[in-house]
Amino acid sequence: MNCIYVLRLGHRPERDKRITTHVALVARAFGAQGFMLEGDDRNILATVKDVTKRWGSKGFKSGAVNDGKAYVEKWKRGHGKVAHLTMYGLNISSMPRLPSPKKLLIVVGAEKVDRWYYDNADYNIAIGNQPHSEVSALAIFLDRLGRGRELDRGFAGAKIRIIPQKAGKKVVGR
Amino acid sequence: MNCIYVLRLGHRPERDKRITTHVALVARAFGAQGFMLEGDDRNILATVKDVTKRWGSKGFKSGAVNDGKAYVEKWKRGHGKVAHLTMYGLNISSMPRLPSPKKLLIVVGAEKVDRWYYDNADYNIAIGNQPHSEVSALAIFLDRLGRGRELDRGFAGAKIRIIPQKAGKKVVGR
Repeated sequence: MNCIYVLRLGHRPERDKRITTHVALVARAFGAQGFMLEGDDRNILATVKDVTKRWGSKGFKSGAVNDGKAYVEKWKRGHGKVAHLTMYGLNISSMPRLPSPKKLLIVVGAEKVDRWYYDNADYNIAIGNQPHSEVSALAIFLDRLGRGRELDRGFAGAKIRIIPQKAGKKVVGR
Repeated sequence: MNCIYVLRLGHRPERDKRITTHVALVARAFGAQGFMLEGDDRNILATVKDVTKRWGSKGFKSGAVNDGKAYVEKWKRGHGKVAHLTMYGLNISSMPRLPSPKKLLIVVGAEKVDRWYYDNADYNIAIGNQPHSEVSALAIFLDRLGRGRELDRGFAGAKIRIIPQKAGKKVVGR
């Protein structure tokens, strides 16, 4: 089984609060094993830990890193590969095969990402070359890496869970 | 060719500004023909029109509606179908076939969606039954409806466009 982590760069606490939270929830829901936030925003990490506690974890980890570049370098020293998601990269739909190394770090930026990441990533991948969102880019990338199978996996240790309904809501264990 | 519109409900201008913008950009980038915002937020609609103007449109429409329920009813009277994306719905990964009517309205809520939408939608569809984001839910749904082919389509009338790069950025026509 592969190990996939997501590193979120350039988070601005006021402006990016909800987007960064959604990036973290996508990481968890679409089968990554961890979410790392460059910089310090305790509210977001608390929200992610709270979701993980209530909805189950499958061992999902989250935390903060001081320096994204140092984290990328450490990852590479540990024989991991780095995929940077950017609309300027090679279009995922033109790739005959997605990279699937044993250890993959997916780097997701905010508005502006330092050139260093483009040069040091093993892959710069565009989820299409049109503007949309880091939330959707990460989701599509993980969905394709997991070949669409991640969306019906169970989460160990869940306190609450949804019973899918044709209409209305059913939640058990609340 | 099918016609797909996205209706965004329950937008709160301060809190949802960036998320709603990302929902609109996903609608455009992933092949919907239109984005309708319940309520009035001129900043968001101006941003969407600006992106459409610079990056091309393929006839993409955007606008505001006063009353989401009235809009859904009108859509149904015009023989369109309505898919409401909700984590409480039937899991997309358990569906042998996705609905593909000629005219489809995709309803995307914010925090709380009125029960009326669950009862009046033709389909309540969960992009997995775990919490993540309306941005990623819409992207995955459109990606699967389009069978992944929407990400390399060109946009007519684009003033700028990206030339995909292995590293770095290349934009023409700026």
